[in-house]
Amino acid sequence: MIRGRSTLGVPAWIKRSTRLATNQERAAGAVPNWEAALLEQSLSRRVQAAGPAYWGAGAAAPPPIPPIALTGGVPDPESLPFDDLAEAARIVLEREGRPALQYGGPQGFLGLREWLAERVGRADGLSLGPENITITNGSAGALANICETFLDPGDVVMAEAPSYPGAVRTISAQGARLETVPVDAEGLRPEALAETVEALSRRGARPKLLYTIPNFHNPTGATLSVERRRAVLEIARRHRFLIVEDDAYGEIRFEGERVPSFFALSGGDGVLKVGTFSKTLATGLRVGWVAAAQEATDLLVRMRFDMGTSPWIQRLVAEYVSRGLLDRHLSQVVEIYRRKRDAMATALVEHCAPYVRWRLPSGGFFLWLEMDRRVQPEALREAAAEEGVAYVSGDAFFVDRSGRQFIRLAYSFVVEQEIEEAIRRLGRALKRAETGPRPGASQSGPAR
Amino acid sequence: MIRGRSTLGVPAWIKRSTRLATNQERAAGAVPNWEAALLEQSLSRRVQAAGPAYWGAGAAAPPPIPPIALTGGVPDPESLPFDDLAEAARIVLEREGRPALQYGGPQGFLGLREWLAERVGRADGLSLGPENITITNGSAGALANICETFLDPGDVVMAEAPSYPGAVRTISAQGARLETVPVDAEGLRPEALAETVEALSRRGARPKLLYTIPNFHNPTGATLSVERRRAVLEIARRHRFLIVEDDAYGEIRFEGERVPSFFALSGGDGVLKVGTFSKTLATGLRVGWVAAAQEATDLLVRMRFDMGTSPWIQRLVAEYVSRGLLDRHLSQVVEIYRRKRDAMATALVEHCAPYVRWRLPSGGFFLWLEMDRRVQPEALREAAAEEGVAYVSGDAFFVDRSGRQFIRLAYSFVVEQEIEEAIRRLGRALKRAETGPRPGASQSGPAR
Repeated sequence: MIRGRSTLGVPAWIKRSTRLATNQERAAGAVPNWEAALLEQSLSRRVQAAGPAYWGAGAAAPPPIPPIALTGGVPDPESLPFDDLAEAARIVLEREGRPALQYGGPQGFLGLREWLAERVGRADGLSLGPENITITNGSAGALANICETFLDPGDVVMAEAPSYPGAVRTISAQGARLETVPVDAEGLRPEALAETVEALSRRGARPKLLYTIPNFHNPTGATLSVERRRAVLEIARRHRFLIVEDDAYGEIRFEGERVPSFFALSGGDGVLKVGTFSKTLATGLRVGWVAAAQEATDLLVRMRFDMGTSPWIQRLVAEYVSRGLLDRHLSQVVEIYRRKRDAMATALVEHCAPYVRWRLPSGGFFLWLEMDRRVQPEALREAAAEEGVAYVSGDAFFVDRSGRQFIRLAYSFVVEQEIEEAIRRLGRALKRAETGPRPGASQSGPAR
Repeated sequence: MIRGRSTLGVPAWIKRSTRLATNQERAAGAVPNWEAALLEQSLSRRVQAAGPAYWGAGAAAPPPIPPIALTGGVPDPESLPFDDLAEAARIVLEREGRPALQYGGPQGFLGLREWLAERVGRADGLSLGPENITITNGSAGALANICETFLDPGDVVMAEAPSYPGAVRTISAQGARLETVPVDAEGLRPEALAETVEALSRRGARPKLLYTIPNFHNPTGATLSVERRRAVLEIARRHRFLIVEDDAYGEIRFEGERVPSFFALSGGDGVLKVGTFSKTLATGLRVGWVAAAQEATDLLVRMRFDMGTSPWIQRLVAEYVSRGLLDRHLSQVVEIYRRKRDAMATALVEHCAPYVRWRLPSGGFFLWLEMDRRVQPEALREAAAEEGVAYVSGDAFFVDRSGRQFIRLAYSFVVEQEIEEAIRRLGRALKRAETGPRPGASQSGPAR
């Protein structure tokens, strides 16, 4: 099927390719040209390292019936503050239209950086200024910026096993080697980290940085204790590696005291703390940031090649937050997420307890379930699709694709009233995917 | 000066650095810590390759009197369509708030890609679909994405001398080696390109891609003829390198016929065409794109690590353009830029003709002046600061920092009524910076 229109007097050698063909047509050899080979021979090594595009873990073929999705780590869609954001957008354009619609620079809008410096500084007990903040395209953009600044091919990066696949991909795409450190129910184990560093050292390697999600971990939900954080910092200091602290979920806390961040405990020394409005406000704003010592911030800005993200968006977020609307919004949504977590946990006890173990997270978006060995992961995947419930399989969070006995459930996005039905369907699927005798209650249900 | 607040029970070894110091304090050794050395030892090689941050060429110390700025390649600020954009933002949030405020994916909003495919396809005589378009954080983000996808350290990239410094920096920061190709008054010379390729070949090197700005070149203003484009394509095809066609200014045309793009002439084979709304609409939207064969688009999407730019912004731009407002706006601003160009050219003849030569560009934002050898560039810089007019020195556009006898004037941003005064000041500065006898009229004034 030739869809091409006539072109503008092109020479004969070009005419044979005056149209763009689809992958399918090219694969079928219908369009002889030089490009496919040229592209292949022109690829950077990083393309190979990057692997397939990351666009939501666990995407699959369309399911037989519309599932209730417990997949995305995204905010409750009912709660998005549409009116306030639209109003902030209008106000900003009316009041400061020109700077909002012109280049704003790679470090980002000063007013938002000042607000963030004050807020992060207050939370962390540090005296920060706008020179300590750089605004990024979400925390994904922040991590990409950090990796470009600090990683060369072959460098060793440590991360929790399991960890957030988007971060793993960004790190790997630099050609860096990932060494993962096993976690327990309370998160990263300093002993395991020390062992990893020492094992690396015996092989003549040195880790360059640790990527960690200390609060309401994705996917496990665990929050690292202050004692462990101090121990990890000691190891970092002794072995001289940087810590990248991803705090995407830290403000979604349901109970308990805030644990001091790595950034706070180190006084900013050797720690880059990544934050975002994606989980607290809206993922579609694409506004994240890095808080770091000025030297580090200056380096991050040097490695920005995008002329900065939209100053309009940055300014409307500044307008929104500086009116106190973020805190008001947070207190509302944290309450919603707490209710959703509780609804999911209650339903799990009722419908899934014989098959799974979990810890109740004290914040964040996720429940991380370890399935009994009698549940066959492949069978569960099929049964869940048939029952109409979608989750993310645990192997997505492990570099070595282990973790098939785990699944991640997000309670953030699902409609609250559908949670029980979703978990009921999951329970039916678990039952169908079970082989061998039913396990005893002592081995399952909520963990301590 | 210790600004730090008390911290949260940190151990003694950390306490000495419970605050973040400024660069100045650290340089003065006031804050002993381990971070500066750690950062330095942790830097990627790309940081070195990138050099200082690019944030507007020609930035300098504050001038003695407020200058009239002829520096920025940015749109006329009076003409920014504030009301229409604010309205589009509101409509989109009201009508499609959820997808606008959620992740939109790395390739970008389908509706905008469809609109762009139709528009680019119509202009280029190609049948394009949304699979041929990827949305980026401006054309700067597009170029960074392309470089990450296709360049390894040591790869050879060709570009015009002079060229846009932001692009040069992005390419260099990949560790790629830039080979620049001299231009004449009509732009890139195919013979010089062929010579460059052959010289590379003799040294055992092969160029991987050519970065070129064929329409209303930044900084020269030149537009490449269709004959030269065909010749360049032949060379690219023979020597198998990719062409990255930066068409930031193509729609700002004052007169003459549109010249078919490399993308059109090649049918998309081996050509990636970069576009942007920055020059036609507003730089602060940060919406650009790449048009390419689907295989290339798929690869670019694989090398995105930022979860895409804001779908809200992408959707409001789609709303704006699909109502026909872009074309209406373009017809207005092209008229404004034409008037500004003419005002600047007229003033140049009156106030600067003895000292400079130039070609009248038929579109875009810039006039590129070659100064008579009797004008001392350093003296001009000082005199211009004192007279109160700011321009970008030509050396900013050359990799080897030659080109000091050139200056770039942007007529896009300056207030129309200030153009004559700006050029009068420039004339006075040129006169002050002149050494030796005044040149005859035959050697200067507007070029043919």
